[in-house]
Amino acid sequence: MIDMKLMMMLLMWGSESQGRLLSIPTKPNPDDAPASARWLVSLNFWGVLNTISSDLGGAPFGNVVSYSDGLPNESTGIPYFYLTTLDPTARNALQDDKASFTVSEYPLGTCGRRDPMNPTCSKISLTGKLKLVDEKSKEAEFARNALFSKHPEMKDWPEDHNFQVFKLEIENIFLINWFGGPKPLTVEQYLHPKVNNVGLIL
Amino acid sequence: MIDMKLMMMLLMWGSESQGRLLSIPTKPNPDDAPASARWLVSLNFWGVLNTISSDLGGAPFGNVVSYSDGLPNESTGIPYFYLTTLDPTARNALQDDKASFTVSEYPLGTCGRRDPMNPTCSKISLTGKLKLVDEKSKEAEFARNALFSKHPEMKDWPEDHNFQVFKLEIENIFLINWFGGPKPLTVEQYLHPKVNNVGLIL
Repeated sequence: MIDMKLMMMLLMWGSESQGRLLSIPTKPNPDDAPASARWLVSLNFWGVLNTISSDLGGAPFGNVVSYSDGLPNESTGIPYFYLTTLDPTARNALQDDKASFTVSEYPLGTCGRRDPMNPTCSKISLTGKLKLVDEKSKEAEFARNALFSKHPEMKDWPEDHNFQVFKLEIENIFLINWFGGPKPLTVEQYLHPKVNNVGLIL
Repeated sequence: MIDMKLMMMLLMWGSESQGRLLSIPTKPNPDDAPASARWLVSLNFWGVLNTISSDLGGAPFGNVVSYSDGLPNESTGIPYFYLTTLDPTARNALQDDKASFTVSEYPLGTCGRRDPMNPTCSKISLTGKLKLVDEKSKEAEFARNALFSKHPEMKDWPEDHNFQVFKLEIENIFLINWFGGPKPLTVEQYLHPKVNNVGLIL
């Protein structure tokens, strides 16, 4: 049993420092767009990554991919992927890095009987640039830890497929989590939500 | 309890007529690409619809949408959508109809403990043109029946949002349902799989 009084005290106690988030235990109030978006991205583990396909005449090409935005207590909001150029998505990105990544709340089981397209069943599309991360960088190490922790079988994917870490550099956010159209949400608000000093969103 | 002997007899009995499919009860053998693809598309009910965003500098924009390809006994393989121009996806399509639609097997629960990106957990991306269907046509009536049957709450979506039927005219199919890369599958094979005279795929 969680001591709610202690929890509330910890929440009230915090300063508005910015940083990586600890896990967000329950679905945030939809009015809080940054918390709502970060909850959805940190909790989910797969989505559809969209690139521009040169093979298909410049069509937008969606592909089911797994991702992670950090270990559960180090969520960054930035989706990292483990891709191979044997697959069109990575090849597309290396030619044209325009991309978006789309995640639905539906697979989390928190939408109940509502339709996946019901506006109260959250969905987010992060648009930006899909970039290869230097495999020797600290960021790649962080991303591999995050990915392998959430997707244990990735560690054993065939070495000769040459999987590499990619990230989405987010430039625009489209979030629907309630009636009334997309929630206004800047990249800055999303990447640096106000958190208290134990890392929970205020 | 299904009488498997009768089922097998019915399956063997069929001629190779083409037409709308009755439901495909169990996951087909992954070697049978048309059956595998049609099973996934007919059984699932949501995916990510990707268009080219003029608002976002030509970026590929993915959006979570519900769909149907026909009533359970009249599956066509063609995904129909119910979209409003209050949402960017429909607006994008009316400016540039290049689109793809991506569906994962993962939400069906048949991937077990495998990762959503494991190649034996099927995924399909249908690429083509996203077209508005004339609302007075028989096709639109067929699509509305199919959509409202699979997504009952659609009937009650706000009238003033002016939802309209769209369809994906498929030009290319990307199917992964096993190791060894995408399965060769033409649009013709997908739209007109060999079926027997009770409408089950042979």
